[in-house]
Amino acid sequence: MSVSPPPPLPVPPMSSEPSIRFGVLGCAEIARKVSRAITLAPNAELYAVASRSFDKAKAFASSNGFPPHAKIYGSYDSLLDDSDIDAVYIPLPTSLHLHWAVLAARKKKHILLEKPVALNASEFDTIVEACESSGVQLMDGTMWMHHPRTAAMRDFLSDSNRFGQLKMVNVTFTFAAKSDFLKNDIRVKPDLDALGALGDTGWYCVRSILWTANYELPKKVVAVPGAVLNDHGVILACGASLHWEDGKVATFHCSFLSSMAMDVTAIGSKGTLHLNDFVIPYQEHEAYFSAATETGFNELVTGWVPRPSKHIITADLPQETRMVREFSNLVTAIKKGSKPEKHWPTISRKTQLILDAVKASVDKGFEPVEVGN
Amino acid sequence: MSVSPPPPLPVPPMSSEPSIRFGVLGCAEIARKVSRAITLAPNAELYAVASRSFDKAKAFASSNGFPPHAKIYGSYDSLLDDSDIDAVYIPLPTSLHLHWAVLAARKKKHILLEKPVALNASEFDTIVEACESSGVQLMDGTMWMHHPRTAAMRDFLSDSNRFGQLKMVNVTFTFAAKSDFLKNDIRVKPDLDALGALGDTGWYCVRSILWTANYELPKKVVAVPGAVLNDHGVILACGASLHWEDGKVATFHCSFLSSMAMDVTAIGSKGTLHLNDFVIPYQEHEAYFSAATETGFNELVTGWVPRPSKHIITADLPQETRMVREFSNLVTAIKKGSKPEKHWPTISRKTQLILDAVKASVDKGFEPVEVGN
Repeated sequence: MSVSPPPPLPVPPMSSEPSIRFGVLGCAEIARKVSRAITLAPNAELYAVASRSFDKAKAFASSNGFPPHAKIYGSYDSLLDDSDIDAVYIPLPTSLHLHWAVLAARKKKHILLEKPVALNASEFDTIVEACESSGVQLMDGTMWMHHPRTAAMRDFLSDSNRFGQLKMVNVTFTFAAKSDFLKNDIRVKPDLDALGALGDTGWYCVRSILWTANYELPKKVVAVPGAVLNDHGVILACGASLHWEDGKVATFHCSFLSSMAMDVTAIGSKGTLHLNDFVIPYQEHEAYFSAATETGFNELVTGWVPRPSKHIITADLPQETRMVREFSNLVTAIKKGSKPEKHWPTISRKTQLILDAVKASVDKGFEPVEVGN
Repeated sequence: MSVSPPPPLPVPPMSSEPSIRFGVLGCAEIARKVSRAITLAPNAELYAVASRSFDKAKAFASSNGFPPHAKIYGSYDSLLDDSDIDAVYIPLPTSLHLHWAVLAARKKKHILLEKPVALNASEFDTIVEACESSGVQLMDGTMWMHHPRTAAMRDFLSDSNRFGQLKMVNVTFTFAAKSDFLKNDIRVKPDLDALGALGDTGWYCVRSILWTANYELPKKVVAVPGAVLNDHGVILACGASLHWEDGKVATFHCSFLSSMAMDVTAIGSKGTLHLNDFVIPYQEHEAYFSAATETGFNELVTGWVPRPSKHIITADLPQETRMVREFSNLVTAIKKGSKPEKHWPTISRKTQLILDAVKASVDKGFEPVEVGN
C-alpha cells in the first residue's frame, strides 16, 4: 500500500487577486454542495443566489453559508443583470440549460454548468458558441475530474510500463432511487431531464470511459438490449458498449433501479486499474485506487504474483472545491488577458456526443450507431 | 471488516471408508494442481496416471507427489481398464472430452471433468447420458464453487434484507497471454480447445453469472461486437450480455489479450457484492469479498453511508482440495447406495448452453440468440 504525501495547503488569494464572485442560478439540491465548495475555495466567493421565488432564494442563502451581504434575487434574469457577478453556477434542469447558459454567456458571465450539459450536442454547440463569442469560460460540473486521485490514476494509465495500451474499460454507476424520486425527481421528467439515468449516472460512466481513452472518441456505440424506460420514455436504466477503431472496447451500465455501485475497471496490455467509488469517494479526505502491473499466478496457479497494490491519495480540499478553484483560476487568468481554456468544453461535448449516440441506439432498438463529431 | 471463524478441520477418513482412488487422465499443466489437491483431500488418493507416453506419465507422477506404488500407464485405455480405480480426473483438451469421458463412464469411473465440459451442449448430453447409464458421478472442475467464500457470498445474495432481488451482474476474467501461449497453447487451437478464451476464462464468467442468478437460465444472449478471433477462428477475446425475462441483465468480458482482471459485481435491489479474484483468490488461505446494503450518501453527498464492508473468509483447505473432497464424498455415498448428485452436471450443462449461445451470436455477427434448453 502506498500513501501519497498530503498535497500542499491551498494558497489564500493574494490581495491583488480578488475572489471570483459567483451567482448561483437556482436552488437545486446539488447547489448546496457547490455553494459550500465556493465558500471553501480560496479564490471564489458566494456573491448571489437566484430563484424564481425570492423567499426560496433567501432561505437557500441563509441555510447554505452565504455571507450576510450576499445578493438575493427573485429571478434568474435579475441575477444575470448584476454586473458585479463574474461567474454563474447553473444547476437547473437540463431542458433549461440552453436558454439560461446562452443568456448568461451574453451577459459575460463565466459558466460552471451542471451535467448533462444539454439535451443533445447540437444544443450544447449553441451554448459553446455563445461562450466563445463572449470570451467566457465554460466548464461542466464533473467534480471527480478534479480530485487528486484522478491525476494519480492518470499517471498510472499513461505509464507504458505499468499500464500499457488500453484494451477494455467497464464502468458502472447505479443507485436505488426511492419511489418518491421515481415519481417526482426532475431526472425522471421528460420536460426537465429527458435523458434520465443516462444523463445522470450515465454521464459519469461515459466521462470516465473517455477519460481512460484519453478522450479519443469511439467510432460506434451499441446500447445493451433491455433498457428500462418509464411511462414517459425517460431512461431509468441502460447500458452500452463503445467501440474504437483499434479494437478497444468499453461497456457501461447506469441505473436508478439497482443498489449503489460506482466502479471503474480499466484493463491495459500490462496493467489493471480498479476503483469502486469513482464519482464520490467513500470519504472526503482521502481516496484509494487499486493498480496491478504484469500480474500473474504463482507456480501452481493457487495465488496471484504480484498482488494488486492499493494507493491512497489524500485530498487537501473536497473535489468540488478543487473544481471551483480550478474554474476560478481560469476566470482570473481570463480577466488578466488569457483566452478561455477549451479543454473543458471539448470534453463536455465529447461526453454529450456519446450520450446522444447511446440514446439513439436505445431509440433504434439497440442498433449500432456511429458517433457524431 | 468481519473475519469468519476458521472452519472446522477436515475429518480424516474413517478406516471403514476407504479413500477414493483417482486416476489422472493426461499430464496437463492443471493436472499438477489437482494432483496436489487429491493428495491433500482426506478422502481421496492418487492411484494412477496415464499419458500417451509412459515416460511422460512416470515423470509426472514423480514430480507431483504420487505415492511410490502409484500405477503408471502409457495409454488412457489401460488406465480405464484398471478396475481398482474409482474415479478419473480428465484434464484433456476439450475436443477429447466426448470420447474419453464417455469411455470412462462405460468403464464405471466417476468423472471429474475439466472445463469447458464439451465443445457444445449436445456433446455434453452424450457424456451425461453415459454417466447416468453407468450410475457414475459427474462434476466439472470449477474450483471456486467449492471455496467457503462462495458459500458466504451465497448467504449474502440469498438475503432479501441485505441483497434483495438480483438486478445486474458484470463479470470480467482476462489475462495477458504470452506470445508462446498465443501460438502454441491448446486453448488457441481449433482442433483442441475450439472455444478459446470463451471456453477458458469465459466459462468462469458465465458460471459466476449463473451462480448469482441461482442458475436460472437467461432467455437471450447477445455478443458484444468486436470479438477478437485468431486466424483459425478461435476466440481470443469476447464479451456478451445475457437477458432474463424479468429484466435482469448480465454482462461479461473474457480475454487472453488484456492484463489480469477477475471481477464479479452483482447488484441487487438492496445490496451490492464485489470481488476481484473470484476464480483464484489472491492467497490460498483466505479470501475476501465486499458487501454493501442500502448504501447511500451523507447529507451533502460528499461520502458514502454506510460504506461497503469487507468480509474475510478463512479457507481450511485449498478450493481445489475442497472440490476433490466434495466429489469424493459423493462417490463414497454412491458406493453405499446413493444416486449420483444431479446438481453438478445440471449446472455444467447450463454453463455450456450459454457458451453455445455466445459462440452462435459471435458467429452470426453479434445478433441476439435464444438460449437453448
